[in-house]
Amino acid sequence: MKKYVYLFDETKASDETVILLGNKGAQLAEMTSIGLPVPPGFTITTEACNEFYKNDKNWPGNLKEQVQEQLAKVEKKMGKKFGDSENPLLFSVRSGSYVSMPGMMDTVLNLGLNDQTVKGLAKQSGNERGAYDSYRRFLQMFGDVVLGVEHSKFEGALSTLKETRGVEFDTDLSADDLKELIETYKEIIKKETGDFPNSPEEQLELSINAVFESWNTDRAVSYRRINSLRSDAGTGVNVQVMVFGNFGNDCGTGVGFTRNPATGKKEHYGEYLINAQGEDVVAGLRTPQPIDTLKKVMPEAYEELVKIYDKLEKHYKDMQDFEFTIEKEKLYMLQTRKGKRTAPAALKIAVDMFNEGLIDKKTAVMRIDPNSLNQLLHKRLDTIAKEKMIEEGALLAKGLPASPGAAVGTVVFTAEKAVELAEKGDKVVLVRMETSPEDIEGMHVAQGILTARGGMTSHAAVVARGMGTCCVAGCADISVNEEEGFFKAGGITIKEGEYITLDGSTGEVMKGQIPTVEPDISGDFGKLMSWADEFRKLSVKTNADTPKDAQKAKDFGAEGIGLCRTEHMFFEGDRIKAVREMILAKTEEGRHKALAKLEPYQQEDFEGLFRVMDGLPVIIRLLDPPLHEFLPKEAEDIEALSKEMEISVQEIKDLIEDLHEFNPMLGFRGCRLGVQYPEINAMQTRAILKAAIKVKGEGKNPMPWIEIPLVGHVKEVELIKGIIEKEAEMLGAKGKIKYKIGTMIEVPRAAITADEIADKVEFMSFGTNDLTQMGCGFSRDDSGKFLKKYVEYGIYEKDPFQSIDQEGIGKLMKICIEHSRKKNPKIHIGICGEHGGEPESVKFCHKSGLNEVSCSPFRVPIARLAAAQAAIEDKK
Amino acid sequence: MKKYVYLFDETKASDETVILLGNKGAQLAEMTSIGLPVPPGFTITTEACNEFYKNDKNWPGNLKEQVQEQLAKVEKKMGKKFGDSENPLLFSVRSGSYVSMPGMMDTVLNLGLNDQTVKGLAKQSGNERGAYDSYRRFLQMFGDVVLGVEHSKFEGALSTLKETRGVEFDTDLSADDLKELIETYKEIIKKETGDFPNSPEEQLELSINAVFESWNTDRAVSYRRINSLRSDAGTGVNVQVMVFGNFGNDCGTGVGFTRNPATGKKEHYGEYLINAQGEDVVAGLRTPQPIDTLKKVMPEAYEELVKIYDKLEKHYKDMQDFEFTIEKEKLYMLQTRKGKRTAPAALKIAVDMFNEGLIDKKTAVMRIDPNSLNQLLHKRLDTIAKEKMIEEGALLAKGLPASPGAAVGTVVFTAEKAVELAEKGDKVVLVRMETSPEDIEGMHVAQGILTARGGMTSHAAVVARGMGTCCVAGCADISVNEEEGFFKAGGITIKEGEYITLDGSTGEVMKGQIPTVEPDISGDFGKLMSWADEFRKLSVKTNADTPKDAQKAKDFGAEGIGLCRTEHMFFEGDRIKAVREMILAKTEEGRHKALAKLEPYQQEDFEGLFRVMDGLPVIIRLLDPPLHEFLPKEAEDIEALSKEMEISVQEIKDLIEDLHEFNPMLGFRGCRLGVQYPEINAMQTRAILKAAIKVKGEGKNPMPWIEIPLVGHVKEVELIKGIIEKEAEMLGAKGKIKYKIGTMIEVPRAAITADEIADKVEFMSFGTNDLTQMGCGFSRDDSGKFLKKYVEYGIYEKDPFQSIDQEGIGKLMKICIEHSRKKNPKIHIGICGEHGGEPESVKFCHKSGLNEVSCSPFRVPIARLAAAQAAIEDKK
Repeated sequence: MKKYVYLFDETKASDETVILLGNKGAQLAEMTSIGLPVPPGFTITTEACNEFYKNDKNWPGNLKEQVQEQLAKVEKKMGKKFGDSENPLLFSVRSGSYVSMPGMMDTVLNLGLNDQTVKGLAKQSGNERGAYDSYRRFLQMFGDVVLGVEHSKFEGALSTLKETRGVEFDTDLSADDLKELIETYKEIIKKETGDFPNSPEEQLELSINAVFESWNTDRAVSYRRINSLRSDAGTGVNVQVMVFGNFGNDCGTGVGFTRNPATGKKEHYGEYLINAQGEDVVAGLRTPQPIDTLKKVMPEAYEELVKIYDKLEKHYKDMQDFEFTIEKEKLYMLQTRKGKRTAPAALKIAVDMFNEGLIDKKTAVMRIDPNSLNQLLHKRLDTIAKEKMIEEGALLAKGLPASPGAAVGTVVFTAEKAVELAEKGDKVVLVRMETSPEDIEGMHVAQGILTARGGMTSHAAVVARGMGTCCVAGCADISVNEEEGFFKAGGITIKEGEYITLDGSTGEVMKGQIPTVEPDISGDFGKLMSWADEFRKLSVKTNADTPKDAQKAKDFGAEGIGLCRTEHMFFEGDRIKAVREMILAKTEEGRHKALAKLEPYQQEDFEGLFRVMDGLPVIIRLLDPPLHEFLPKEAEDIEALSKEMEISVQEIKDLIEDLHEFNPMLGFRGCRLGVQYPEINAMQTRAILKAAIKVKGEGKNPMPWIEIPLVGHVKEVELIKGIIEKEAEMLGAKGKIKYKIGTMIEVPRAAITADEIADKVEFMSFGTNDLTQMGCGFSRDDSGKFLKKYVEYGIYEKDPFQSIDQEGIGKLMKICIEHSRKKNPKIHIGICGEHGGEPESVKFCHKSGLNEVSCSPFRVPIARLAAAQAAIEDKK
Repeated sequence: MKKYVYLFDETKASDETVILLGNKGAQLAEMTSIGLPVPPGFTITTEACNEFYKNDKNWPGNLKEQVQEQLAKVEKKMGKKFGDSENPLLFSVRSGSYVSMPGMMDTVLNLGLNDQTVKGLAKQSGNERGAYDSYRRFLQMFGDVVLGVEHSKFEGALSTLKETRGVEFDTDLSADDLKELIETYKEIIKKETGDFPNSPEEQLELSINAVFESWNTDRAVSYRRINSLRSDAGTGVNVQVMVFGNFGNDCGTGVGFTRNPATGKKEHYGEYLINAQGEDVVAGLRTPQPIDTLKKVMPEAYEELVKIYDKLEKHYKDMQDFEFTIEKEKLYMLQTRKGKRTAPAALKIAVDMFNEGLIDKKTAVMRIDPNSLNQLLHKRLDTIAKEKMIEEGALLAKGLPASPGAAVGTVVFTAEKAVELAEKGDKVVLVRMETSPEDIEGMHVAQGILTARGGMTSHAAVVARGMGTCCVAGCADISVNEEEGFFKAGGITIKEGEYITLDGSTGEVMKGQIPTVEPDISGDFGKLMSWADEFRKLSVKTNADTPKDAQKAKDFGAEGIGLCRTEHMFFEGDRIKAVREMILAKTEEGRHKALAKLEPYQQEDFEGLFRVMDGLPVIIRLLDPPLHEFLPKEAEDIEALSKEMEISVQEIKDLIEDLHEFNPMLGFRGCRLGVQYPEINAMQTRAILKAAIKVKGEGKNPMPWIEIPLVGHVKEVELIKGIIEKEAEMLGAKGKIKYKIGTMIEVPRAAITADEIADKVEFMSFGTNDLTQMGCGFSRDDSGKFLKKYVEYGIYEKDPFQSIDQEGIGKLMKICIEHSRKKNPKIHIGICGEHGGEPESVKFCHKSGLNEVSCSPFRVPIARLAAAQAAIEDKK
């Protein structure tokens, strides 16, 4: 017969027992094994739970006999009997799966009480009030959890009684009061579901069933889906001897953390309630006391607790979060698990524990969630102030957390207004339906950006992350009226000039001003990152278009530029005029003239980048976006352009109409521009190579890598490469400048035919945004609405624009990598989409054998850490 | 030493010699070998030409010696000597590659003449005038072709002389006139390039070089690129003894076809000129005579010619196009090749030749270009009338030949107007910027459709082909003003009500009315198609949405429906109201109510299809297009809808705004609709299965195959399949109706992960339009502008929307097919994109192991024939 029930003292915690018994059960066994004071008990396995479901909700095999057998052993150990009216043994019955699902599943305490045993408990403990308090608690919890009586019915009866007696707290009720309440409770139960089961055996069986069934409640199922947890794991059931924190003022219950979970400081952190059971802490009616006050109240128990803090850390070598109960000054441990912590705390704990010799560098590096670094690098909202203001109704809407950080400012609806007010020193938040490249200057000066449309990789999101500016995107809950200067969220209207606050890490939009906290990148941060660099294999570069961004990224550890989008340079100042002149030109000659104006600007930009990235590769992508992005949209702008260029308004309108595309994403852009207008790519090549030659003349070492965008066919590469080589030849750059020519891989066809392309180029870079758009067939700008539901339904485990869709797009990448390396073993392959800064994607890139990832400056540390973790995991 | 020069009588025609000698040379050898009267000569190989290029334009190896050696043999055979002033031997030097490139490369006739040899020729032939005529022809041709003197200079001198002499034709000039002209020619040459080379050896060497070089002139290179011919093939050089058609009235030159190339009728077809050389036929100054008049003029030569007609056909077993010259009543053959023919002729010739026992069925089937069937199935313009009207300036513009056929009618600019006028009996041509599903009724009643935008697979093109209506799409040369009711083409304005004519097979748009010819599907057509069906392995189905189209396709041989687009049914009459009600509904209940109205309509539609396709599979695709396609666009329509639905205009506008997408192609459509609104797919399933049950009750055998569109992830399939199965269960259709569930493969991710999907479905169908759009990353609506250039540059060999991009998208398909069959060997795989009716694509589908292709009704015969050819080629 399969073993379904394990005593706490017959096993230990291990990867297997955590799965078999659930984490709570495994840790109860572990604590028992290292001599901590754990009340005895046993765990029913998760296998039993799974078979219960397979078995039409019947207990499998001889589970019943095994429970009775182990229960008898516990009775023997305790010298008490379950259901005995003189010396009754009581139990808690608690759920516990392989990972904690807080509050999702069920618990029954004080099990085994009835009108007889309660008397035995009262007599044996000498505490009648405590006994009846336990009984009423049991009725309430069993009634709710097992019998399905509405919780509020019991709470109502309790409140009524307290009111009648004129007392504030439960603890003020006398034993007689409680007896009366118990009768009321029994009536409620009878009315709702029939007689309360007096038999402790029946109580136990029903409670175990209830815990089993709580594995598959709607909320538990949703929780697992949302958190990507295994739905076939099942829950263990922990049946443990009750200890009582509610038997007087020498009793209590509490929670501890072995270090401060908010700051990471090594201190005895925790709180407790005198004369209470665990649920009272949750209920929040009484305020728990900080742990060090226990020293005075119960010095002996406190002494033991302090030893336990130490013992837990030495044993688990990580910060622990534990629950305890004190019964008549005697301390009992009821649970321990790895403690949740803030990002700053995680960093401090990892570094401190290494310094204390508790863990090695690898472990320290593995301890930090790369995503959490975001919190460390950006300004953030004061947590307490934010909570308070949200309680007071400040929350207006919730969008996508598109770029982390916090922003407080007055609302503006146009980039022009943003610039105007920022110049006066105002702090503004730019609110737009969606942003376009024309808004770039306004975005630069804004504290934060809020858009009603667009996903995590929309223009607003990508640009904001690049600039390190807070952004909430795709906030479908608001409707923006840019013309009249207001937006609506729910019933509330926010006009231009009113203050709002954005939380870019959560997507929350709030009315008013919430205080912020500046980032504090302490020495610990640098230390941990240097450890990470010791392990990682992937090179980490940055996506940057300006020397300023490049410098920032270099400070964050970037080893070069993995993507410079030349078009971002096209919008500044006078350049846009020349760009428009080029687009409006009807002849090649006209285009040449306009391009000649642009060339010195471009060259200057590249010089700046090469100076910052001295000795490091700078990947420069040739012009990529559709030309219509550079033309004005509003009537007045068109009119202005008409006057400036001396071209009729109609002609400009005709051209705009002509350039209009049904699906611009799949339109006339990328290298298609270069195929049609080779002179554009020729000018860009000249600007790049002239800049490199100049910077080299300054004694520096420029390394331009020229990148051809949106390639789908090897012949496109050959054609554009020809243009580049020709210019390089004419400038005498060959042999003088270490330039390379490469291609983006973002069109599925390019990935599929990579073997043809691989020996024509020296490097490739996956543009995973576009590869995802085309490969999965959804536009990043439009998919926000339905992708949410897709992730909710688990069709995609994660938003494929946030984390690489490894089973689909990843497969396409692997085909590309494999075929490319076969053809050209020396080829350098990287990724420069937004995924380059997302930990799971970075790990996938490591596993797939890429050479580099590139991401926005603020994500560089995240990528470095994730790359290190991937390398460490790889070695395991 | 490699052999570079072959005498005509030392080899024959074969696949190898056609490549080595060029087709002309190989056929001269072949004709010699079967005893036809071919003047002796030799061919310099294409290899020599290629080595000439590798060798910096120098003759390779001992080519010079080989030429001299073979020339000596010819001299011996003829008893004349090259360059001899008494009895000179003259040559023609002609190019010829492995396929005919008419007029692209160079020829020199009468080579070997100078001031001495011309006298010998005059004496020996006894025809002084003929000799000097040959000499002046030689100077003219050599001067132009070899020395690069402008042709018009010689023509000018000739015209001047004719004017001075007051004669009309060259033949009216006397020997003395010609001598004078020769002096003028020599002066022209001297002035332009220096002295004329008198040495016949030098003349020969220079002429051979000129032929070699003519292989790589710009026009030849373009011609090869446009016609996808090998650029590394090289040209052969044919050096052949001259025979003279210009030595008097017992001489002549002509061209023959062994059957009538226009009708296919077996008759002696051809024409000739008395006292002329070949170039005179081309020049067109004199009108050639029909071949049968030769009987009276030169009965002997005629007798021989008639025998040759017969001999050529018996030998080549195909209709031949040949050139001949008669010198003093003696007939000489100068060239033969497979004759070009019209589609009706090709059909008649293939069937007749089978009946005559000349060829077998396979050969007959292989003889027909599947694309040419288009001509047989549609109304077409009267060729002569069209030519005449174009000469008179009727051609307005040229767009894409989107749907074959011809259309003559008055111009209208809205679908409503089209319907209004058609009801009155008017014939109209609908001209639109682009069409949308709302235009469907107007498109139905129009004679033809003309759009300014959109490619070969734009809405207009796809729908028109489906209906068999003539369509010219993407006609960028016109600008349409729909509101004011006119369009402009070049300087001409065409207003509503004016007549235009469209040629859907060429894309030409013409002013006025051109007479048309009705299609004539004779018995030969049916016979050949039935032969094709004996060979083909692919099943051929049709894309049809209405019983009428389905019936038409069945008449054309369709074996079922491969794609029924349910949404096309949504626009008719009252249905669109219910569709809009559904979209505007805010609750599931509201949607249910609207869907309940639609269900009976849909059921009725499906019943009709099942009745027509009794016993044949009908693949029905669930709702696919984005919902915004069903909403009105114009203000007045929105207002009307607002009144009808009792919803504010603003609310409708908001919804339209909300549904607006940046890239609708990659938006909220396909199965994504079903994931969000399962009730839509549920309704469609009910309509399909209820229809099947009803039609089964009528004693018929309905076979619905339900298809899930735009799948990217296996979980989408599972989800939608669940909806279908649930409805099937509720209707009791399981086991009763032979329904199948399958999926479209049009998202690259689906192709890549097909192994996961394959065992969840019973069939798959490639939507190669969308697969190409997403796989290559260009939208079919927008790519027209740049794809033209791409094809021109040879980046893509053919427009990938017209013919499957086999190296890219084809690779994706192969991955899908291979993985799917491995997982589910019984899976049925087809293709239903527009490519399903394109011969090269059909052949690719056969080779890739697909089970079926599906195409619009008018393309069914094309697909049947292409499938047969693929199967025949496969066996070879």
